[in-house]
Amino acid sequence: MPPSRVDRPPRRVGEFDLIERLRRLVPTAGPGVRTGIGDDAAVVSLPRRTLVTCDVQVEGVHFRRGMSAPGDVGWRALAVNVSDIASMGGAPRYALVSVLLPPGVSLRDVEAMYRGIGQAARAHGVIVVGGNISRTSGPLALDVTLLGEAGRVLTRGGARPGDGVWVTGTLGNAAAGLFLARRPRVRVRGARALLRAYRRPSPRVRAGRALAARSAVTAAIDISDGTAQDLAHVLDASGVGAVVHLERVPVAPAVVAAAQAAHLDPYVWALGGGEDYELLFTARPGFETSARAVARVAGVAVTRIGEIVPRRAGRWIAGPAGRRTPLRPAGWDHLATRAP
Amino acid sequence: MPPSRVDRPPRRVGEFDLIERLRRLVPTAGPGVRTGIGDDAAVVSLPRRTLVTCDVQVEGVHFRRGMSAPGDVGWRALAVNVSDIASMGGAPRYALVSVLLPPGVSLRDVEAMYRGIGQAARAHGVIVVGGNISRTSGPLALDVTLLGEAGRVLTRGGARPGDGVWVTGTLGNAAAGLFLARRPRVRVRGARALLRAYRRPSPRVRAGRALAARSAVTAAIDISDGTAQDLAHVLDASGVGAVVHLERVPVAPAVVAAAQAAHLDPYVWALGGGEDYELLFTARPGFETSARAVARVAGVAVTRIGEIVPRRAGRWIAGPAGRRTPLRPAGWDHLATRAP
Repeated sequence: MPPSRVDRPPRRVGEFDLIERLRRLVPTAGPGVRTGIGDDAAVVSLPRRTLVTCDVQVEGVHFRRGMSAPGDVGWRALAVNVSDIASMGGAPRYALVSVLLPPGVSLRDVEAMYRGIGQAARAHGVIVVGGNISRTSGPLALDVTLLGEAGRVLTRGGARPGDGVWVTGTLGNAAAGLFLARRPRVRVRGARALLRAYRRPSPRVRAGRALAARSAVTAAIDISDGTAQDLAHVLDASGVGAVVHLERVPVAPAVVAAAQAAHLDPYVWALGGGEDYELLFTARPGFETSARAVARVAGVAVTRIGEIVPRRAGRWIAGPAGRRTPLRPAGWDHLATRAP
Repeated sequence: MPPSRVDRPPRRVGEFDLIERLRRLVPTAGPGVRTGIGDDAAVVSLPRRTLVTCDVQVEGVHFRRGMSAPGDVGWRALAVNVSDIASMGGAPRYALVSVLLPPGVSLRDVEAMYRGIGQAARAHGVIVVGGNISRTSGPLALDVTLLGEAGRVLTRGGARPGDGVWVTGTLGNAAAGLFLARRPRVRVRGARALLRAYRRPSPRVRAGRALAARSAVTAAIDISDGTAQDLAHVLDASGVGAVVHLERVPVAPAVVAAAQAAHLDPYVWALGGGEDYELLFTARPGFETSARAVARVAGVAVTRIGEIVPRRAGRWIAGPAGRRTPLRPAGWDHLATRAP
């Protein structure tokens, strides 16, 4: 089936019309695309080492139509894939977009969603080379596959004892943004940036590329599930332990303010919230100077939050006053530190 | 998100368990796979010219769970993508499999589906390098993305007046198989092969590769929508017309017998049925000798069914006794030829 086929489009719009209308909303041509949308397969140029990932967003599971504007759903569907390429140190290049449309979805909403995909694509130099549209009797779903170029590849599996544990940006922004989206009457300074972090995450492509170019960087992952959970993925894949120093975890003042409004410890969001799409990485000791260079190139703060230890030394959060609490995938339960 | 993540799996099976169980059912390692399932993205080796396609199968739209066994659904989901790579002259290599699981789907059915994916993957040398599994409140859906290697690429757009119009295999088998699947009491010699053609289509990868290697071949497409419709796609893309000679269209005796049982003209299935996943291609005049070589290499008949004419000469089916009827995407209405 051609990448671009519609299996029964929304009523009142023909298949051909719908494809034409939607393809105009996303970048579909550019360097490296020999044959794009409209044949049985796309033909693209890639270096020998190709990155490929896919991620699906399902209404009612990953988003709610009432809570997320269609354009944000489209942006996010592409951005989460860009983040996966970024965390491997790659450059995103070509996307395929599969959409399942439920009965009654309006053409306006579908177009807004594609406009969001197009905006995220342009922001990251991605060209849409295929996909398909099908009706479904169930919820709206948006499945994006993304191809990227890799030089040196960062995986989850390279962390070694002695490495530092680092993150880009500040953490908990998306969780704070979600809280504010649900509670529009809560007023917090910096709310707009938090809402945007939740609705239109900005994957760290430049940071990922800069990190992959440095041999001192040993492993990386993007923070989608939550800092603690994603760190656990790195520890699992690398066969090591870690200590995270709570006071070093970077949290923006706006997140602290929103957490106050929510009567929450901000570290609950920073370690457990997820969907920040920052990068967590490990690097050999003495990375501080390189870190400053990466931060400059990537336009984002880079902070050391802990260190890798041998597996047998375990997984810990070093809390205030030197207390240690086990690092759990769920993140951070501030009550647990208080209890000795 | 990692290719392999489960967003809420079926009850009673943990996320990790489900992924582990399913990945054992499909080939996940092999030449060219540097990093497969389990990191943020897969890392694969591909030649500079890469083919990529995706195709989604949605329950209630593309299949019904009562009519298709789960293993057949899995096989088909991969096979239709393999066919898209085959029609471009490529070799299928790496797949990503996204599954949406409705409430109440059994682990047994999900495993059977993956077993079908695995069988089709092994039959065509495809390695599953990623994907994801999510729950949905709606119907089961299976979205497969397939990457392939290309040498010379066959598109829909190269047909020129004077070229022959050719097909591989015989046509209408899948439509006849669907009829037999719906009417299990109808007895026809050769029914098994027809049922298999419908349930477990065999994409023409070897034929596609052999055709792409011959410069006389000018365009190709796989027959998914129906011979007449897919030929129309080639004519649209190439800006030409065509005449198809009805008596040359290859139809298997079993299809004739099934059509008789269905009180249908077999050409209705051969030209309009679709889902045969044979190849339709165009080639410069004098291709007959090469055609025999391709047939030998690919293990499938190759038949010239018509020729390309200038656009202004139109699109025709030359019927019995020299009568011409317009070639319509819907295929063949034998009543139309009878009316002058």
